[in-house]
Amino acid sequence: MTVPEAPQVVPTLTANQAFVLHPDGTFTFEERSTPTLQSDRDVIVRVMATGLCGSDVHYWQHGRIGPYVVEGPITLGHESTGVVIESGSGVQGLAVGDRVALEPGIACNTCNHCRNGRYNLCKAMRFAATPPYDGTLATYYRLPAECCFKLPPHISMRDGTLIEPLSVAVHSCRLAGFMQDKSVIIFGAGPVGLLCCAVARAFGASTVVAVDVVPARLASAVKYGATHTYQMSDETADKNAADLLAAAGLDGADIALDATGAEPCLNCGILALAQGGTFIQVGLGKPNPSVPVGQICDKEIVFKGSFRYGPGDFKLAIGLLDSRRINVDGLVTHEFPFGQAEDAFKNVAGRGGIKSVIYGPDVDEEEARATLV
Amino acid sequence: MTVPEAPQVVPTLTANQAFVLHPDGTFTFEERSTPTLQSDRDVIVRVMATGLCGSDVHYWQHGRIGPYVVEGPITLGHESTGVVIESGSGVQGLAVGDRVALEPGIACNTCNHCRNGRYNLCKAMRFAATPPYDGTLATYYRLPAECCFKLPPHISMRDGTLIEPLSVAVHSCRLAGFMQDKSVIIFGAGPVGLLCCAVARAFGASTVVAVDVVPARLASAVKYGATHTYQMSDETADKNAADLLAAAGLDGADIALDATGAEPCLNCGILALAQGGTFIQVGLGKPNPSVPVGQICDKEIVFKGSFRYGPGDFKLAIGLLDSRRINVDGLVTHEFPFGQAEDAFKNVAGRGGIKSVIYGPDVDEEEARATLV
Amino acid sequence: MTVPEAPQVVPTLTANQAFVLHPDGTFTFEERSTPTLQSDRDVIVRVMATGLCGSDVHYWQHGRIGPYVVEGPITLGHESTGVVIESGSGVQGLAVGDRVALEPGIACNTCNHCRNGRYNLCKAMRFAATPPYDGTLATYYRLPAECCFKLPPHISMRDGTLIEPLSVAVHSCRLAGFMQDKSVIIFGAGPVGLLCCAVARAFGASTVVAVDVVPARLASAVKYGATHTYQMSDETADKNAADLLAAAGLDGADIALDATGAEPCLNCGILALAQGGTFIQVGLGKPNPSVPVGQICDKEIVFKGSFRYGPGDFKLAIGLLDSRRINVDGLVTHEFPFGQAEDAFKNVAGRGGIKSVIYGPDVDEEEARATLV
Amino acid sequence: MTVPEAPQVVPTLTANQAFVLHPDGTFTFEERSTPTLQSDRDVIVRVMATGLCGSDVHYWQHGRIGPYVVEGPITLGHESTGVVIESGSGVQGLAVGDRVALEPGIACNTCNHCRNGRYNLCKAMRFAATPPYDGTLATYYRLPAECCFKLPPHISMRDGTLIEPLSVAVHSCRLAGFMQDKSVIIFGAGPVGLLCCAVARAFGASTVVAVDVVPARLASAVKYGATHTYQMSDETADKNAADLLAAAGLDGADIALDATGAEPCLNCGILALAQGGTFIQVGLGKPNPSVPVGQICDKEIVFKGSFRYGPGDFKLAIGLLDSRRINVDGLVTHEFPFGQAEDAFKNVAGRGGIKSVIYGPDVDEEEARATLV
Repeated sequence: MTVPEAPQVVPTLTANQAFVLHPDGTFTFEERSTPTLQSDRDVIVRVMATGLCGSDVHYWQHGRIGPYVVEGPITLGHESTGVVIESGSGVQGLAVGDRVALEPGIACNTCNHCRNGRYNLCKAMRFAATPPYDGTLATYYRLPAECCFKLPPHISMRDGTLIEPLSVAVHSCRLAGFMQDKSVIIFGAGPVGLLCCAVARAFGASTVVAVDVVPARLASAVKYGATHTYQMSDETADKNAADLLAAAGLDGADIALDATGAEPCLNCGILALAQGGTFIQVGLGKPNPSVPVGQICDKEIVFKGSFRYGPGDFKLAIGLLDSRRINVDGLVTHEFPFGQAEDAFKNVAGRGGIKSVIYGPDVDEEEARATLV
Repeated sequence: MTVPEAPQVVPTLTANQAFVLHPDGTFTFEERSTPTLQSDRDVIVRVMATGLCGSDVHYWQHGRIGPYVVEGPITLGHESTGVVIESGSGVQGLAVGDRVALEPGIACNTCNHCRNGRYNLCKAMRFAATPPYDGTLATYYRLPAECCFKLPPHISMRDGTLIEPLSVAVHSCRLAGFMQDKSVIIFGAGPVGLLCCAVARAFGASTVVAVDVVPARLASAVKYGATHTYQMSDETADKNAADLLAAAGLDGADIALDATGAEPCLNCGILALAQGGTFIQVGLGKPNPSVPVGQICDKEIVFKGSFRYGPGDFKLAIGLLDSRRINVDGLVTHEFPFGQAEDAFKNVAGRGGIKSVIYGPDVDEEEARATLV
Repeated sequence: MTVPEAPQVVPTLTANQAFVLHPDGTFTFEERSTPTLQSDRDVIVRVMATGLCGSDVHYWQHGRIGPYVVEGPITLGHESTGVVIESGSGVQGLAVGDRVALEPGIACNTCNHCRNGRYNLCKAMRFAATPPYDGTLATYYRLPAECCFKLPPHISMRDGTLIEPLSVAVHSCRLAGFMQDKSVIIFGAGPVGLLCCAVARAFGASTVVAVDVVPARLASAVKYGATHTYQMSDETADKNAADLLAAAGLDGADIALDATGAEPCLNCGILALAQGGTFIQVGLGKPNPSVPVGQICDKEIVFKGSFRYGPGDFKLAIGLLDSRRINVDGLVTHEFPFGQAEDAFKNVAGRGGIKSVIYGPDVDEEEARATLV
Repeated sequence: MTVPEAPQVVPTLTANQAFVLHPDGTFTFEERSTPTLQSDRDVIVRVMATGLCGSDVHYWQHGRIGPYVVEGPITLGHESTGVVIESGSGVQGLAVGDRVALEPGIACNTCNHCRNGRYNLCKAMRFAATPPYDGTLATYYRLPAECCFKLPPHISMRDGTLIEPLSVAVHSCRLAGFMQDKSVIIFGAGPVGLLCCAVARAFGASTVVAVDVVPARLASAVKYGATHTYQMSDETADKNAADLLAAAGLDGADIALDATGAEPCLNCGILALAQGGTFIQVGLGKPNPSVPVGQICDKEIVFKGSFRYGPGDFKLAIGLLDSRRINVDGLVTHEFPFGQAEDAFKNVAGRGGIKSVIYGPDVDEEEARATLV
C-alpha cells in the first residue's frame, strides 16, 4: 500500500477550519486564521488525524480540569499526526512532505526545569488543548521543529496518533526504573494502560498483570503484552491485592502503574507491592484519595507522579514502533471524518471501543490509513 | 575529662539484668541469662546508655505497632551505646574496651534485599525491641561486629545514644537526594526532626524550615540547623502551605521531610513543594491518610517512605559527628538510672524535654557523661 | 526429552575426583576429600558440566593473572552446573535433586562493599579457580545456598554452564545504563562478546554493532543479536571508528562495550562514541594501554570497569533465558569427558569454536545434554 | 564599603573596545560595533572584570586547542562579571544595574542534549573565546538572560570572576557523586584545583588531599579546604600513590579529581583509589596518555570526563558563595587595567600567583573591588 507523492499530499494552503469548544459546552466549526511561521525553527503542519483523549472529553463535559478552565472558545485535540507543509529556514532534518507525529507541548526551553531536562515541568508550557492554548482539531497547526517526529514507514497517519499516548506510557515506565525480569501490575486497560502493558513487556518485564473491571478490556490487554489479567472485585483493597498476587503467582510485585486514578486501584497497588517496590501514578482521579502511607513507609516504597512526557519520550516511543517491539494494530477502533467530530466525543464519553480518531478537514481517509511499506 | 582505663570499665561478667515489658503493660526487672558469642563474628557489649524512642513507649502504651504485637515478655530499648567486653575470633577492627554505638538490627545478610544493599528491607531482620526480639535495656547485649561503630572521642556514651536516631535522619536525607543549595521543609521538631534539620544543613541545604505546633520546639530547631521556623495553624493545608512558603521567602520547596506522620503535615508538605519536588515520609502516623495525589501528579513529585536505616548510615552519622559538622549537645535533656527506667517511659509519654536516656545497670553516670577529649 | 528421577541422578557419594593444575603447568587427576556442609546454609552439589574460560587457560599457560599466582596445586573451572545432593538445615527454596547453575564467588556478606550491594568488590571474596581457591573441575563442590540458581527446564546442564558468562554480560550491560533504542558497539565476538550482543538486544538496543577481526566470529554475532558487524582493520583507531560508524549508519554510538581488552578496540570505541556516551571495559588486556582521555573529556564520556558480576546478575541472566528473550543454542561447540579435560584446555588455547565444556567425572553426557521440557 | 548608584555605574553607551588576538599571536586593541539585543530574552552587559584562564593563554601561545583554531581575529576572555545595561522585553528577574556573573556559553536549547539537561554537550554551543566566537575582553557583551546570575552582595565584581572556574569545580564534584564523609584526592592546586578542594569540603568530604609539585601551592590548598597535602615526587605512580595514601592515613581514596591533565597524576590517582572508586578528569593534558585500565577493571572504577558546566552549576556556585560555605578571598592575586591586558597574559604564562584579573575598559577599579555589604 502506497501513498501519493508529497506534492499531491500538500495542496496549496486552504482555509484553516477548526472544531471549537465553547464555555457553554457547545461545539462549532469555525474558520480560523492560518498559522504562519513565527521563528526560523517553526514548522507548519497539515493535521491528518487526531486521537481523542479522556481530557478532551472532560473539558467538553465539565468545562475544566483542575485549575484549567474553558473560559473562551478553544480548539481541542492533541494526539495528532500531520504532514509538514512549510518549515523555517533554521529547521534541520525535516522536509516539506514529511509525515510526522506531533508532540503537543511547546516549552520555553530556557527556564530551570527546561534546562535541567524536565521540560514537562515548565511553568510557561503552552500545551495544545489545555486552556487557553488551542489544540490540533484544525486544518493546520504550527509548532517548533523539535516537536515533530517522523513516522516509521509502516505506521499509518491514523495509527501514528497513538504515539502521543504511547509517549505517556513510555514516560511512566521510565520513571519506574529498570524493568528487566521484574513483575509489573498495570491498573486500567484503556489506551494508556494497554500501552503501558506493551511498554513494560518491551522493557523486559517478565510478569505484566493487567487489572480492570471490564472483562473485554482485560482480553485486549493480553493482545498488547499482559501475561496475566485480574478483574477487580468489590472486595477490600487487601483482598483484591491478595487475590491479584495469587492469580499471578507472585509474593509481591516489583512495580505498579495506575492508569485509572481510582482510589481502590491505588490502594490495591500499594498493598500488592513487595518491599522496596515502586508505584507510578499515571492517571488522575479524585485529588485527595486515601493512601496506605503506613505501607509506603514499612516497605520503603517509592511513589511517583507521572506528568505527560519529557525529553526523549517521543523519540523512544517511535523507536519502539520502528523496531516493531511494540505493535499498536487494532488500538484505533473508531474513525470519524472531521464533520462528525462531535460524534467522536460522544463515542468516547460512552466508552466505545479503545481509541477514536478524527481525521483532519478534507483528509482522504484511505490515505490516512495507508502505510509506506 | 578522661575515663578510666578499659580494665576498670569492664569488670568480670556479672548477672544480666533486664527491664522487661509484659503483654499486660507492666514492667519488671528480671535476671536473664548472660549472652554468649554464637559466631566468631559476634561481640558482647556491656550496655552503657539507651535513649528512649517513641516506639518503645508505644509498645508500652498500646501493646503493638502495626503487625508487631507484644505477645510475651520483651526487653525494650534500641538506641544504645556500650563497651565491648568480648569479641569473636573473626572480628577485625574492634577490641575489648572499645566504646561503641550499636546498630540494633541484625539482618540475614544473604537474602536478595541484603545482597542488593537494602538490608533494612530484610524479612528475616531481628530488630531489637521489635517483638519477639529483645532490646538493649539490659546489662549485656550480643550483636555481630558489623553492627558496632566506634564512638568519636569527643562524644560521650550518653550522647552516643543519639547516633541511632541520627542514622534515621541520615537515611531520610539521603533518600531525598542531592541537597546542596536546596530548600527543605522538616515537619516535627522532636528528636528525629531536629536531627533531620541538622543533617539537611550539613548536606548543604540553604533553607531549612522547621515546622511544629509547639513554639519551644521551634526554638530548639534553630539551634540545630533550621534557618526558618513555622508554627502550624488550624487552617487548611493550602493556607498553611502558603503561609509557610511566605514565611520562608520561597515560591515552593525542593524537599519536604515529615517526621510527624500527621495528616495535616503530609498535606501541607506536598502542597508546599515546587514542581519536581521530593517528599520523604519519615514518621508513622495513621495508616491511611488522605493524600493530595493530584498534586503529586501535576508536579511530578517523588514521595518516598523511609524505613529505619541501611548500608552506610551509621558510618555517615558518626562521620558527621566526628567532623563536628553536626552538634548534638543539649539534645539529651533527661537522664535516668536503670532502676528508674519506668520513670523515663512516663517522661517520654508526657512529652518531657527532647531525649530521655536510661543508663545501664550499675553504670557510673559520670563516666557515661565523660568524653575522651 | 526427559531425565531420570532425582534418586537415580544422585547416587551415594563416591570419591571426589579433581582435575588439578600444578605450578609447573602440568595437570593431574587427583582424589580429594569430599566436601561437607560447613554451615546450615551450605549446599553440596555434584558438578555436571563446566565451561572453560579464558582465565582458566591463562593460569595454565602463564601461571598467574595479575596478582593471582598459582603457587600450589589448584583445581580450575568456575562456569558450572550441578545437581544438589545435600543441603543444610537452614536452606530454603532448594531441594536435593535440583538442577542448578553455580555462582562461583563466595563473598563475606558483612564488609562494607557486601552490605552496600557490591559484593563483587569484597576483599575477602573466595572465588573458584582464583588462587588459592579451588574451582569446580571435580566431582563435588560446596557453596552457600545464595550461590545456587535453579535452571529453567528448557536449559540443559550443558548449556546452563553459559549462565556464568551470561552473568558477566548482564553485569556489563547493566553498568551501561538504560539501553532502550540506543546504539551499542561490542568489541569481541567470543563467548562474552556474543552474550553481550544478546543482552544488549534483550535490553532494547536498536543497533548492536559486533566488532572482531575474524569474519566467522562476526557471522556468529548476527545469530546472537548483532544488527551490524564490523571487521577491524589495521588502520588507525580514527579510521576504524569512522568506518565502523559509516557501516552502521551512525553519527556516534551511545554505548561501547569492550570484551577484548585490546588497545586498538578501546581506542576505536572511545572515538566512535557520541557526546555523552558510555564505555564499559569488560575484558582485560594489557594493564596500561594508551587511552584517548582528551576525547573522554571533550565528549564527557563515562568509562567504567566491569568486574565479574554482582547482586541480581545471575537471577537476571536466568530470567532472560527463562523468558526465552536470550537464546544460547549452539554456543557450546565442543564437549569433553572429564578424562580428556586437558584436551579442552588445548582446544580453547587454539581458539577452537566458541565454548568448550568439560563434563563432571562419571557424568552421563546424554543426561547432561537433556532438557526437562 | 558601597558602590555608586546604578545610573552612575551605567553611563550612556560608549564605543565598544576589544582586546583582540590575531592568528599570528599578536594582540591589538580594536573598536568593535556595540552589541544590540537580538531577541527579547537578550541582555547587554558592561563587562567589569575578566579572569584569565589557561585556555586563553594557550590560544595566545599555541593558536589552537585541539580542533579549535584561531583562524581570524578573536576577542578572548570568558570568566567575567558585568553590569546589566539593557535587557529585552521578555527578560524576567533581571534589571538594568544588576551586578551579574556571566555564564559564557550560549547553547541552542533545542537539540537533544540541551533538552535532556546536558547543554554542555550541545554541538551548536557558542562559547565565548572558543574560535570562532568572541569572548568578553571588551566593553560590552550580549548574552541571553539565562546566562546572567546575580552576584551575592558580599562578592565584588573582581571576585565574582571566580564564579566561572568555581562552576567548573562544582560540575566536576557533582559528577563525582555523593561526597559526604568521603575521602577525595585533588590533583593540581591552581585555581580550579583549589576551588575543587573548597567544593569537596562544602560537599561534606571528610578528607581532602591536595596534590601538586609546588609547595607554595599546597600551602594555598590548606586555606581553601584541603585537610592534607601531598607533594608529587619523581617516583613511580605506584610509589606516589602509596606515599600519598600513607600521608593521608587512607587505605584507598573514594574519589580522585585531576585538575592537571598530567599523566603521572592520572596514574597516581587511579592507583590510589579504593575498590569502587570514582575518578574525574577535569583538566586536559596530552590527548592519549597511558592509563592503568587493569586497575579500572579490577576495582570497578568509574572514570568520567568533565566538560565545562551544565544545568544548575552556576546557580549552585553562587549559592555556595552566598551561604559563605565557600570563601574565595585571596584567590585573585593580580589585577590589570584593560590597557595592560597583555601583561596579564604574560603573568599567567609565567605562572604568577593564583588568578589574574583584567578590568574592563574605563572601569573604576575601586568600584570593581567594592562589595555591597
